[in-house]
Amino acid sequence: MMFSEDLDHPLMHGGGIAAVQRLFTDAPQPFIDLSTGINPYSYPLPQLPPDLFTRLPDPEALAAVATIAAQSYGAPSPAHVVPAPGTQVLLPLVAALLGPGRAAVVAPTYREHARAAALAGHRVAEIADLVAAREAMLVIVTNPNNPDGRQFDQNELIALSKWLATRGGLLVVDEAFMDVGPLDASLAGEVGRNAIVVLRSFGKFFGLAGTRLGFALAAPPLAARLSAKLGPWAVSGPALAIGATALADRTWIEETRNRLIAAADRLRAILLSAGLEIVGGTALFQLTRIPAASDLFHYLGRAGILVRSFPEHPTWLRFGLPGTEKAWARLQMAMAAYAGTH
Amino acid sequence: MMFSEDLDHPLMHGGGIAAVQRLFTDAPQPFIDLSTGINPYSYPLPQLPPDLFTRLPDPEALAAVATIAAQSYGAPSPAHVVPAPGTQVLLPLVAALLGPGRAAVVAPTYREHARAAALAGHRVAEIADLVAAREAMLVIVTNPNNPDGRQFDQNELIALSKWLATRGGLLVVDEAFMDVGPLDASLAGEVGRNAIVVLRSFGKFFGLAGTRLGFALAAPPLAARLSAKLGPWAVSGPALAIGATALADRTWIEETRNRLIAAADRLRAILLSAGLEIVGGTALFQLTRIPAASDLFHYLGRAGILVRSFPEHPTWLRFGLPGTEKAWARLQMAMAAYAGTH
Repeated sequence: MMFSEDLDHPLMHGGGIAAVQRLFTDAPQPFIDLSTGINPYSYPLPQLPPDLFTRLPDPEALAAVATIAAQSYGAPSPAHVVPAPGTQVLLPLVAALLGPGRAAVVAPTYREHARAAALAGHRVAEIADLVAAREAMLVIVTNPNNPDGRQFDQNELIALSKWLATRGGLLVVDEAFMDVGPLDASLAGEVGRNAIVVLRSFGKFFGLAGTRLGFALAAPPLAARLSAKLGPWAVSGPALAIGATALADRTWIEETRNRLIAAADRLRAILLSAGLEIVGGTALFQLTRIPAASDLFHYLGRAGILVRSFPEHPTWLRFGLPGTEKAWARLQMAMAAYAGTH
Repeated sequence: MMFSEDLDHPLMHGGGIAAVQRLFTDAPQPFIDLSTGINPYSYPLPQLPPDLFTRLPDPEALAAVATIAAQSYGAPSPAHVVPAPGTQVLLPLVAALLGPGRAAVVAPTYREHARAAALAGHRVAEIADLVAAREAMLVIVTNPNNPDGRQFDQNELIALSKWLATRGGLLVVDEAFMDVGPLDASLAGEVGRNAIVVLRSFGKFFGLAGTRLGFALAAPPLAARLSAKLGPWAVSGPALAIGATALADRTWIEETRNRLIAAADRLRAILLSAGLEIVGGTALFQLTRIPAASDLFHYLGRAGILVRSFPEHPTWLRFGLPGTEKAWARLQMAMAAYAGTH
């Protein structure tokens, strides 16, 4: 997606901080980027020997990450795991597991799903709930959903996948934000016996989005088709090494989950104090509704704080978690000042 | 491609050194991997701030690499450049730029080309020369070719692309080893006015294969279609930073080109002294023919040296460049000892 210069909706995605800084040249530095749902308390980078950069990634390193990811996410086996350089590149490949037909994306959600399904040749409908999904062959659900945190019932999703299976269809569940729960709602354990592909993001929960690592979990025949498309070296040596260490670090994972849940509470309190309505969220972001969203977006921008706006939902703003006490203080002050003057 | 345990042909690709070490457990350490065509004198890694790993890659960093790559490779503009996490993942996407039809791969060559074209739905023929290519819609040529170093005439390739263009076809030229020349044979400058997609590898010449960076050069409409499939964050933050620095370092590029050419001369001398026939090569590898290739493969394996064998060409062995004086000495001694006893 190209960066849009439209001032009201300056970003289609997070990650474009350089361009935003030019929009708010007088803002205090450093700019605080709350436009993503990426954990700001990132996993400590292990030592990265130069070999990881110089040598072709060893097939055994790829297999090791698949094994650790299967354990960490609860997939039936490493043969059910497809490591990729992030989940984004998997979206069109997963959508192309079915020939062109009717696809349904439960919306509003991450917009790349509809784009990827269309790229794969499907006629794509955005639907409001799972009931409407039964007309489609390919159904894409994000659980918990981005940006509103909406959660889908595990049994309902399994029932839908069984219905789809009878017609040769497929359910794709994007669990990009599932690491922070609700843990028992994951369908990772179901991909072996159902027509389900689960997507898991590494970069969001571990706070290592630039590393580019993500996974598709699927029945082995589907996993093999995805792996064949990616080829043998899609994931970089550093990403494989970091992933193998981080996904096995149960202590850090558990502590971080608790830390993020506490941070989300703190964020919600700030937003509520400033009079914003909380639409929903996960531990990694909060979606708010405020009639003057565009006004607040620019107010925060001038204060050096970038949040996410939504072209199709002009009253929404999404807030990620501040990463430092300084950033928390700046957000709190800016929100309080805005509330005091509006 | 899966690793094959077949002892005579233990590797379909380079990069599986861990498995090979288990085949030759008594071999002296460290194992010398000459099974790839990757420059062992790798570009010195710049400082990599943690931000590169933690933040989503900024769209401007991607655009910057496209700009520098266009200059370095001689593509018409950054809009003609598609950065990717290595060229491998591009192969099926490039092959899918045409609907299923007849594809021809000039062979013998890198085997992933035929596999990728088949994945894209084409009927794939392996052909011996460009004359036979005129029957196909999609033609794939590696120039200079891997593993035999065969070079294709630039004008002949352009004429072929013009013929293909009249039929709605496409010429793909894999220039993975073009960095070491012949420089003026590159078709990077032709992608704007011809039905040509050029693939350029970053990792081979810069000796950074684990970093995962590569490029497709193509007319902007084709480039946009490839970029759409890859999505906005296919390349990692570290790869973008390393690529931007390395591709702009003309001094290092020039010195390394000369160093590799000298190293290739040295390698050829060792191989010829041992009685091997040189089939061809580039500055990054030499292809040899020897009736007892399997025997020599195992002899070198026991000496802790891995070279590339070819299941379909049992008399071929391909040698990459040793990276250190110690590795040169071990190769020279092993080859001389083999020649003295066989």
